[in-house]
Amino acid sequence: MTAALVLNGPNLNLLGSREPGVYGAATLADVERLCVTTGAELGIDVECRQSNLEGELVGWLQEAGARQAAGELLGVVLNAGAYTHTSIALRDAVVGAGVRVIELHISNVHAREEFRQHSYLSAVAAGVIVGLGVNGYPLALRALTLS
Amino acid sequence: MTAALVLNGPNLNLLGSREPGVYGAATLADVERLCVTTGAELGIDVECRQSNLEGELVGWLQEAGARQAAGELLGVVLNAGAYTHTSIALRDAVVGAGVRVIELHISNVHAREEFRQHSYLSAVAAGVIVGLGVNGYPLALRALTLS
Amino acid sequence: MTAALVLNGPNLNLLGSREPGVYGAATLADVERLCVTTGAELGIDVECRQSNLEGELVGWLQEAGARQAAGELLGVVLNAGAYTHTSIALRDAVVGAGVRVIELHISNVHAREEFRQHSYLSAVAAGVIVGLGVNGYPLALRALTLS
Amino acid sequence: MTAALVLNGPNLNLLGSREPGVYGAATLADVERLCVTTGAELGIDVECRQSNLEGELVGWLQEAGARQAAGELLGVVLNAGAYTHTSIALRDAVVGAGVRVIELHISNVHAREEFRQHSYLSAVAAGVIVGLGVNGYPLALRALTLS
Amino acid sequence: MTAALVLNGPNLNLLGSREPGVYGAATLADVERLCVTTGAELGIDVECRQSNLEGELVGWLQEAGARQAAGELLGVVLNAGAYTHTSIALRDAVVGAGVRVIELHISNVHAREEFRQHSYLSAVAAGVIVGLGVNGYPLALRALTLS
Amino acid sequence: MTAALVLNGPNLNLLGSREPGVYGAATLADVERLCVTTGAELGIDVECRQSNLEGELVGWLQEAGARQAAGELLGVVLNAGAYTHTSIALRDAVVGAGVRVIELHISNVHAREEFRQHSYLSAVAAGVIVGLGVNGYPLALRALTLS
Amino acid sequence: MTAALVLNGPNLNLLGSREPGVYGAATLADVERLCVTTGAELGIDVECRQSNLEGELVGWLQEAGARQAAGELLGVVLNAGAYTHTSIALRDAVVGAGVRVIELHISNVHAREEFRQHSYLSAVAAGVIVGLGVNGYPLALRALTLS
Amino acid sequence: MTAALVLNGPNLNLLGSREPGVYGAATLADVERLCVTTGAELGIDVECRQSNLEGELVGWLQEAGARQAAGELLGVVLNAGAYTHTSIALRDAVVGAGVRVIELHISNVHAREEFRQHSYLSAVAAGVIVGLGVNGYPLALRALTLS
Amino acid sequence: MTAALVLNGPNLNLLGSREPGVYGAATLADVERLCVTTGAELGIDVECRQSNLEGELVGWLQEAGARQAAGELLGVVLNAGAYTHTSIALRDAVVGAGVRVIELHISNVHAREEFRQHSYLSAVAAGVIVGLGVNGYPLALRALTLS
Amino acid sequence: MTAALVLNGPNLNLLGSREPGVYGAATLADVERLCVTTGAELGIDVECRQSNLEGELVGWLQEAGARQAAGELLGVVLNAGAYTHTSIALRDAVVGAGVRVIELHISNVHAREEFRQHSYLSAVAAGVIVGLGVNGYPLALRALTLS
Amino acid sequence: MTAALVLNGPNLNLLGSREPGVYGAATLADVERLCVTTGAELGIDVECRQSNLEGELVGWLQEAGARQAAGELLGVVLNAGAYTHTSIALRDAVVGAGVRVIELHISNVHAREEFRQHSYLSAVAAGVIVGLGVNGYPLALRALTLS
Amino acid sequence: MTAALVLNGPNLNLLGSREPGVYGAATLADVERLCVTTGAELGIDVECRQSNLEGELVGWLQEAGARQAAGELLGVVLNAGAYTHTSIALRDAVVGAGVRVIELHISNVHAREEFRQHSYLSAVAAGVIVGLGVNGYPLALRALTLS
Repeated sequence: MTAALVLNGPNLNLLGSREPGVYGAATLADVERLCVTTGAELGIDVECRQSNLEGELVGWLQEAGARQAAGELLGVVLNAGAYTHTSIALRDAVVGAGVRVIELHISNVHAREEFRQHSYLSAVAAGVIVGLGVNGYPLALRALTLS
Repeated sequence: MTAALVLNGPNLNLLGSREPGVYGAATLADVERLCVTTGAELGIDVECRQSNLEGELVGWLQEAGARQAAGELLGVVLNAGAYTHTSIALRDAVVGAGVRVIELHISNVHAREEFRQHSYLSAVAAGVIVGLGVNGYPLALRALTLS
Repeated sequence: MTAALVLNGPNLNLLGSREPGVYGAATLADVERLCVTTGAELGIDVECRQSNLEGELVGWLQEAGARQAAGELLGVVLNAGAYTHTSIALRDAVVGAGVRVIELHISNVHAREEFRQHSYLSAVAAGVIVGLGVNGYPLALRALTLS
Repeated sequence: MTAALVLNGPNLNLLGSREPGVYGAATLADVERLCVTTGAELGIDVECRQSNLEGELVGWLQEAGARQAAGELLGVVLNAGAYTHTSIALRDAVVGAGVRVIELHISNVHAREEFRQHSYLSAVAAGVIVGLGVNGYPLALRALTLS
Repeated sequence: MTAALVLNGPNLNLLGSREPGVYGAATLADVERLCVTTGAELGIDVECRQSNLEGELVGWLQEAGARQAAGELLGVVLNAGAYTHTSIALRDAVVGAGVRVIELHISNVHAREEFRQHSYLSAVAAGVIVGLGVNGYPLALRALTLS
Repeated sequence: MTAALVLNGPNLNLLGSREPGVYGAATLADVERLCVTTGAELGIDVECRQSNLEGELVGWLQEAGARQAAGELLGVVLNAGAYTHTSIALRDAVVGAGVRVIELHISNVHAREEFRQHSYLSAVAAGVIVGLGVNGYPLALRALTLS
Repeated sequence: MTAALVLNGPNLNLLGSREPGVYGAATLADVERLCVTTGAELGIDVECRQSNLEGELVGWLQEAGARQAAGELLGVVLNAGAYTHTSIALRDAVVGAGVRVIELHISNVHAREEFRQHSYLSAVAAGVIVGLGVNGYPLALRALTLS
Repeated sequence: MTAALVLNGPNLNLLGSREPGVYGAATLADVERLCVTTGAELGIDVECRQSNLEGELVGWLQEAGARQAAGELLGVVLNAGAYTHTSIALRDAVVGAGVRVIELHISNVHAREEFRQHSYLSAVAAGVIVGLGVNGYPLALRALTLS
Repeated sequence: MTAALVLNGPNLNLLGSREPGVYGAATLADVERLCVTTGAELGIDVECRQSNLEGELVGWLQEAGARQAAGELLGVVLNAGAYTHTSIALRDAVVGAGVRVIELHISNVHAREEFRQHSYLSAVAAGVIVGLGVNGYPLALRALTLS
Repeated sequence: MTAALVLNGPNLNLLGSREPGVYGAATLADVERLCVTTGAELGIDVECRQSNLEGELVGWLQEAGARQAAGELLGVVLNAGAYTHTSIALRDAVVGAGVRVIELHISNVHAREEFRQHSYLSAVAAGVIVGLGVNGYPLALRALTLS
Repeated sequence: MTAALVLNGPNLNLLGSREPGVYGAATLADVERLCVTTGAELGIDVECRQSNLEGELVGWLQEAGARQAAGELLGVVLNAGAYTHTSIALRDAVVGAGVRVIELHISNVHAREEFRQHSYLSAVAAGVIVGLGVNGYPLALRALTLS
Repeated sequence: MTAALVLNGPNLNLLGSREPGVYGAATLADVERLCVTTGAELGIDVECRQSNLEGELVGWLQEAGARQAAGELLGVVLNAGAYTHTSIALRDAVVGAGVRVIELHISNVHAREEFRQHSYLSAVAAGVIVGLGVNGYPLALRALTLS
């Protein structure tokens, strides 16, 4: 049995209470449960982590790259939150570690502020899923299992 | 049983022969078959159309809006191809007709030319799926069936 | 008795149902009736057409230019909808055919998205009327009848 | 009987002698006579003022807002001349005083210098009429009388 | 006993009735009373003026500079309203007259239109207070009394 | 004997009457006769088409790509008119269909409006000929016959 | 008795030795003492923290939001230092946690480098105080106690 | 004997005390005496005025245009100060009144802030003299006397 | 018999060895031979020069203008290499000397770096030929012989 | 007796024949004679040179700086022509050699193309004279003789 | 014996495996050994650290500033990786702590993505070494030992 | 024994007297002696040249490329001075001649004017050394001798 990693970035620990009109009522725990359940359906082991620290996310992506190279990981579902728009370090980690990433955003960033229109990650991601709410997580995991 | 519409825009009739390194080897017929099959799995009727004419796509979106309002359609999976980046008319059709649209791109447009980085559609789409190849179509149809 | 042409562009066939908060409750048929009635008051023959196809509008402008050159037409009231902001072809048709055009927008485009702030048509129009709702049509027809 | 105010901004007192190829041969007195005459036809009282001082125009708009709130005024036809493009104070006066304004330009500003392409007033105006020469004034007054 | 000057620019005479959701319900007279009262608490004489004329504000700043040089004035609390964003003349007056200015905005200009994001005054002000409503005035006066 | 296709885009059917100071006095029929005659001199079969519809031009380029792949066509001389500056769909058709295109402009677009300075086609064209009037057509056909 | 939190960001631990011409001679300890003293005058409990880590500041803002929601905190005085200009994560924390923030800068950022002219925080802050040196802290605390 | 007008704009009444490192030690009275003296040498009558009000300067330029048209005035030496960079109204006055203007700046505006690099007046001035200190005034008057 | 001048700019003496994938294998001597031969076919005398010095090219264009005015020269084929993108002096020479110039680029500059997308020469050239390799030279000479 | 140097840059040797509508009918020889004559009136020795080579102008400015340092030269009147807008090397020469330069343009560059609106020289010049035709030369020489 | 600090930022712990075509085959351990060896040759003690956390790097720079002020450190060789382009906090730390920094990049950032063209550090660094591979480290250490 | 070439561009012959606060007190002769001495230490023959002419520098780079191809030269240390920021011709020479170049700047260009922030050379250089004063030359020569 193989595995997938779900990484959530800054402020996603506020899910459920943070701007529910934008992000919905599900909490981070709800989302992580949904991911694990979906993993079970897809026959993969799903691990979930969250951090507000850019550098810690960099480290986790590096670790994921090593595990992927060792055949232990299909890839990462990455909701980098605000760092999506400001972090070249995360982009470098994706490329440097050779990790396969599905970039995910719960809200439709394209309908929000101008500064959310650019992602440093998209160009190096294997795919991008935007605006489908927490339903995006199971779809992203499913995408990881496709060739 | 309800339905979904899959609309492909300009040059997507070239799929399979058009830049296979970018778009893959599947033909438009393959993609449409995959959509119909997926629809069967999801219990919905999937209809597929393709046009090189911006105005014809506008008309189809208007028609879809009417059918959705009548409860006959879940929404549209729209790969507007090059018109994604140049057509305000398509955006106006989506909003004007009140149609629920999942925007889709086979290739990772974010890793390509600068002029493909902006979409007139994303801000009015219900969701966006990018770069997952033809696998994006079944995922988008699945997304339409989620609340 | 002379004549005027009223051309409406993409999505204006949705008038009445399309974003009534922005465009009002009058349908395209209502607008066209209003134009014909106004024409009668002004002593001119008013013909109305609508198309979602940029190229068809180009053709109609060329035809109007020929009729105007033949003294059969006072000019055109043109609401080019979304093509206002993207179509150099329509601008070229206005100039190339030498047709006298009053550019019209029902909504106040200047209070909307940034991309609606620029018109390819205004610089070559004989005049521009914006934001007066469907009342703009009779005013534009009246403007055509003034020297 | 109700009323309308016609405000002309800087340099419009030069009408008739100022660049007649651009602005036409009518003087400011001619224009004001035309406005009063049109008002008579429309059954409204038309008052005309001109100033080269931004601050004085601000004051007149504030006064107009008060009269409009008192039901004494239909609104203002405002040709702010050069201040159109540079004055946020006039825009703030329109919004702050809640006055209904038809923005008017005699020449087609869109066919002139780049810096005349942007108006601080348009987004807060009830409507905009551009390029119809002095004929724009009677049309704007007529627009004020429409719902 | 020393003194401070409170200068309010264009449209601030509309306070109380102007967009109360943005500017609050206090009138200019209320604000000026608050300033005088605060001055009394701080042991300084507070004088208040308002003008819609850029040039008159320039003159008052020049006069304030002269009084400050003469040791009669601590400085100026300046809410330049719309001129904040367009007037280099006011900036030149601040620098040319050597007057100490606390720039003040009642509303949070940073949460409003793009053109309100830039101030010609901030770079030459002794300090800037934004978004605290009319409470900003007493705080600005207090700031003038600190070193 | 092999062949070449000459495609003219929107408003080129107005040649001769459209801004003769810019485009010259030759009509489209004159130009097409000149192309056929030149083809005869060069020993190739020249076919000419014109359309105002972006989507129809897309289709013709796709067809040309297929004929070129079959060894039946040397390539296309393409004067896309206004679509040169706005159509990514035409660019995608050129690349997607693998067709060899000489981009042509009768007038010197570089001496005209800013928006005519950018071409979506040039980067994917085999060559570009600008400003030589209708003489550009025979030169472009000759270029197609050179390795 | 209620409370307020004073958060200082990167490099503010260098106060006193860091560019004293720009930031003054007071150390961070001096500033924190001043804040606590001011709190005592205002009848509120003031807690002070400093961090060079963006993610740690995000966490503290989240915690403050929770305490504010529980009625234990009036809000936060936030001097985010360099992160003011680069951190969307801090902005998201302010909005996501619903915390009331007075943004503060000791130096006049508007008189410094271009990249210090933009703040990601200002648009979501309750108010902004700039350039008043360390005197800004007591003024900001006072502002928190006003309505 | 003919005449010339010297117009000084906002804050030039501060000359001598205003940033003497930038503008020099001569007062406005000194400059005006120098202009009158130079006029005497050149055999022309020189009149000097200063205003902080944009609209008053507009009026003086209009008056100058009328006197020039009547053959009473050679033209105007105009130091518009800060309005140089912000006033389209002054530009319109120059063109509208047909007045011959030598634009003058005492300091080298090109070595100062970015916003002083653009002048709305230069393109419509008969000539521009920058950075020569108060010596620029006699040179500009001399220039007016040359054909 | 009349004549034409072929001017090649900086680094074109490296042809053949310089980036052959971009510029082809022909040397400058090959190109010049091809030009002379083509001239013989067209019945004109072709002279070829190359320089790395901007100022020397300026001088040659001035000389060509004089010869053209004297009826001795049809015009110039100018491949200005890198100076195309940076030299206003060459542009001024073309206009100042009144010389008829066909601008030529061997490679498709539009498919290369952004800074090669702008030419100071195109707007003042009689025509532009881009991307046809060394075949462009004979076509340009032929263009010179057409009216 | 002291001296001044007049340096003319590229294409100024074409004066008289080059665009006389823009530059006037005087030849370079006429201008140089005018400069020498003016020098005689002012009691200074005037030397004139012209070059199309940027590097040669750099050398002359360096030489002038040395002569000025030796007290033999008042400074340079520099009409750098097109290099004004493109040459940082000339700017560096002015600063590096410490030479006092009056920048001069015969035509009003501010009324011409956008790329003529920026000068690399102005910020380091002692003064700038624009648009006064060849009359600018004697005025610039006179300016050099003023303190 | 004195000392130098070598700080490596995010993802530099991946050296050797990360994009070896860009960064080479040496690991971080190799680089650090090379630095220590070079230090021995230069007679200085070299200490090496790496972190993925922006805030930790800020702290190390502050510490280095203190040691440098105490005469214990020559300065820092800083390869800030991705933070080079996004971190104002690091820039502030360099300036605030008064530390002497040689900025270093292994790859030629100028030949890579646009967003790597700007460094927040360069303007406050004592020097910058780019693109020399891991050989840049010994050169940078040597530079620290030069006055 | 092999060799290296040191090329200095415009105004570097002023070293020692040119802005010593920026460039230091060493003359060009000093720098060239330092280069020759360093070469002796490194066992390579160092030749030094300086020119103010862009075209002459182009020629020297072409010659260097030929000598490098012949195994006679390790590469070039190039301080192109102002041409760094304006010359595409030099960039083309580097690439066209295939010469290995270490770009060098004595001063820290990143701490100076905006227009010095961009180099046309960096992207095609083998390395870049900035801001280390004349010490940069021996370091650059040493870099040339490393693999």
